Amino acid sequence: MDLKDKIRVIEDFPKPGISFKDVTTLFLDAEGFAEMVRQTVDIAKTMEFDLIAAPEARAFIMAAPIAYEMGKGIVLVRKPGKLPGNTVKQEYALEYGTNELYVHDDSVKPGQRVLIVDDLIATGGSAMATAKLIEKLGGVVAGFIFISELTALGGRQVLKDYRVESLVEYDDVE
Amino acid sequence: MDLKDKIRVIEDFPKPGISFKDVTTLFLDAEGFAEMVRQTVDIAKTMEFDLIAAPEARAFIMAAPIAYEMGKGIVLVRKPGKLPGNTVKQEYALEYGTNELYVHDDSVKPGQRVLIVDDLIATGGSAMATAKLIEKLGGVVAGFIFISELTALGGRQVLKDYRVESLVEYDDVE
Repeated sequence: MDLKDKIRVIEDFPKPGISFKDVTTLFLDAEGFAEMVRQTVDIAKTMEFDLIAAPEARAFIMAAPIAYEMGKGIVLVRKPGKLPGNTVKQEYALEYGTNELYVHDDSVKPGQRVLIVDDLIATGGSAMATAKLIEKLGGVVAGFIFISELTALGGRQVLKDYRVESLVEYDDVE
Repeated sequence: MDLKDKIRVIEDFPKPGISFKDVTTLFLDAEGFAEMVRQTVDIAKTMEFDLIAAPEARAFIMAAPIAYEMGKGIVLVRKPGKLPGNTVKQEYALEYGTNELYVHDDSVKPGQRVLIVDDLIATGGSAMATAKLIEKLGGVVAGFIFISELTALGGRQVLKDYRVESLVEYDDVE
């Protein structure tokens, strides 16, 4: 099965010129979803880690079955105002302005190894911010697994100090 | 294992008087997370359904491993501006004002049975809105499973026409 066949592409979302990779159609398809989980678990088994971290919200769908299959816990990486406990924060640049991501400051213990997953890597901004959050807590980034990679946008280069894996590639230039 | 022992309670979040049931500590704990999934799957096996629907975002963590374990697809129920395709919308009342939830209009086919999961039932507003979205698409709500139920807030009464199950109960009065 080619997972790409299950990912719907919607033009001009969230703004003109962007071909949005809509993984909701992959998640809705029981066979496609299971295949995505199996492929990710196969890669994850070649990494050594204690926890899986996922920036909200689609990545939660990817992280949770892998964590369950492999007997790991999940670190929720969230936008402002969502986490009730004490947090650490990381800003990252957008095309215009900045975003912030947060984790609970007791979610990763020093020395714990953390696999980071997300549905998409484009410029790598949110992925790198997630890595910095893990490292602020003393954790070690075990690697990244993405469903989709927009290869022309340079995210892999931004994450060059880490192992980066993706399931499907697109050559979009923006 | 008592799942309640794994759920952290944080006072006065998101506002004074609320004892927030913080499931991030449950999700972070590999054994607690796996136990939550097993308990939910045991209940889900007594229901007949084709898809699992989850309102964003914590519920995604609950829905995804259950969908994977049971070979089902996932319907993402999301806040405004998150879904790229054509959607249907349902408003629901908050203490002050209203919220809106959306689903893709092609995510549930007429006659499909849908299990709805969420981490918490309080007044039942977002749960009922999710049920209405499923029914707008011609789907049949197979039932609800929640991790935590705030029994004094009447959510179960709001959902009285449906089967409602929860894993742990709290007697908070607001």
